[in-house]
Amino acid sequence: MNDELYIYSYLCIMISYSIVGMGAIGGYYGGRLARAGRQVRFLSHSDYEYVLEHGLRVDSCDGSFYLEHIDAYGAAEDMPKSDVIIVGLKSVKNRDVLPGLLRPIIDDDTIVVLIQNGIGLEDDLQREFPGLKIVAGLAFICSAKVGPGHISHQCYGSINLGNYSCPKERFEQLVEDMQDAGLQVAEVPYLEARWRKAVWNMPFNGMTVALNTSTDRLLKNPATRQLIYDQMMEVIGAANALGVHSLTSEFADKMMRMTDEMVPYSPSMKLDFDFHRPMEIYYLYTRPIEEAKKAGFEMPKLAMLEAELKFIEERR
Amino acid sequence: MNDELYIYSYLCIMISYSIVGMGAIGGYYGGRLARAGRQVRFLSHSDYEYVLEHGLRVDSCDGSFYLEHIDAYGAAEDMPKSDVIIVGLKSVKNRDVLPGLLRPIIDDDTIVVLIQNGIGLEDDLQREFPGLKIVAGLAFICSAKVGPGHISHQCYGSINLGNYSCPKERFEQLVEDMQDAGLQVAEVPYLEARWRKAVWNMPFNGMTVALNTSTDRLLKNPATRQLIYDQMMEVIGAANALGVHSLTSEFADKMMRMTDEMVPYSPSMKLDFDFHRPMEIYYLYTRPIEEAKKAGFEMPKLAMLEAELKFIEERR
Repeated sequence: MNDELYIYSYLCIMISYSIVGMGAIGGYYGGRLARAGRQVRFLSHSDYEYVLEHGLRVDSCDGSFYLEHIDAYGAAEDMPKSDVIIVGLKSVKNRDVLPGLLRPIIDDDTIVVLIQNGIGLEDDLQREFPGLKIVAGLAFICSAKVGPGHISHQCYGSINLGNYSCPKERFEQLVEDMQDAGLQVAEVPYLEARWRKAVWNMPFNGMTVALNTSTDRLLKNPATRQLIYDQMMEVIGAANALGVHSLTSEFADKMMRMTDEMVPYSPSMKLDFDFHRPMEIYYLYTRPIEEAKKAGFEMPKLAMLEAELKFIEERR
Repeated sequence: MNDELYIYSYLCIMISYSIVGMGAIGGYYGGRLARAGRQVRFLSHSDYEYVLEHGLRVDSCDGSFYLEHIDAYGAAEDMPKSDVIIVGLKSVKNRDVLPGLLRPIIDDDTIVVLIQNGIGLEDDLQREFPGLKIVAGLAFICSAKVGPGHISHQCYGSINLGNYSCPKERFEQLVEDMQDAGLQVAEVPYLEARWRKAVWNMPFNGMTVALNTSTDRLLKNPATRQLIYDQMMEVIGAANALGVHSLTSEFADKMMRMTDEMVPYSPSMKLDFDFHRPMEIYYLYTRPIEEAKKAGFEMPKLAMLEAELKFIEERR
């Protein structure tokens, strides 16, 4: 072995990861990092015994792979600490479950990356852990967990990382390490990135549930097409009111065109609805609507959608 | 026979009626007028052969009755002219079908009473027949057609009449004649009455369809309860913008309390939806939203509901 190369590698690739949640997000990105040689610890209540025995399988458009042995844990209390924790849980668990999972595995240096949808996630976590270094992760990916330790990755896969409360140097180190591991990672301004993603997420997630339909049908009907556009403009108006001025109607136009060109698609909330899982109403609707209201901006159509979703959720 | 009494009756009871539509409204009120001795002609495409043979049966909370012989027609062209035409059709037929039904049976003196839900019905009919004497009829009744020539009347039954374009004297004569026939009829200001009824109709008709539910469940869930109230306030805001200043939030409060006290109820649009009949989206939503917009007032939540209903209607 070449000692110099060894030392170089050691200095650069030093970040260890813990993955909280082995679903479509945690399973895929954790698997990619582990395949690239990073130390990755997986936390999963439901799947850890299965994956300890059978490993992790990722069927992927970018090359499928299988990890025979992974470092899996069934309880946070049993895990060693890692430098970075990637949270891939549904945000429905953030208020009740996530703090208890993080408490045993964080210290003063831990970075937590929230790869989740919604607005207000970082604010709430920071309130719970004032010293924590938090990064927002926005995944652009079509993937699904198809069984325990089995992820199907259909397309895309890039992540935008927005620095919420992490020292600049450590943030850049993280971005670089994930890029070195082969992931497509870009740095984006935190608040803009969250609201930018909400422009698509808020109309389509809820409307596909409220009308039990798919993205293409919503755009084909002229009445709901206009409604989706109006809702996008409510998100952009809210973002503007909160100081994110880079979002304009051009972005709504672009999202409409992009969705026109997509295959009929069921957003994550529609999948949660179809499979009788709780829906992420709070961070996808309640919080952004509240944040906008505090800034004096009303989102009447998305507030109506929120009410319909709460009704649908309660009925189940 | 007492000749004086005969002459007196002849002078007072001189109004003849044609009833267009033998459904829950036309069948009930036409039946009540006929039972009270008025000359009543019934126009019905689907039921006239049946009712010619079997008559009209009204099961009613206020006393059931059966009319063995009624004066029924299957085509407007065959009908003699009457003084008053009561339209009890669903408003979905107003633009395509109603003018053709009315043309053969109206003359310069005819009064048309539209006992229908919605906003803009009179304006449209007047545009079609500029000289026509039009009266708005607002029925407060729970009734249903349960078969050809068979009406079930569960409760209530009063009618408010609003004078749209009828000479005052003839309007008062009509009110009096219907009262003399035993109906509970009151005179109300036309535009206010239409909007007043919309305060209940616009939220509950559409929301019971959009969420496939009933009035009581919408009010039980805190999110949809607030949404219903917000929608009522949109109607009141629109009415105010159109010059109807007597409607205030107190009326919305009253409608909420009234609905809390009602038995679980399926509004007419929900019944139309359940029985796969076309829904009255145009006059219940599209037109009032347009009228409000012309006066500079937006109804965002009801506009969203309109879009959802159009989507649901097209999907069927």
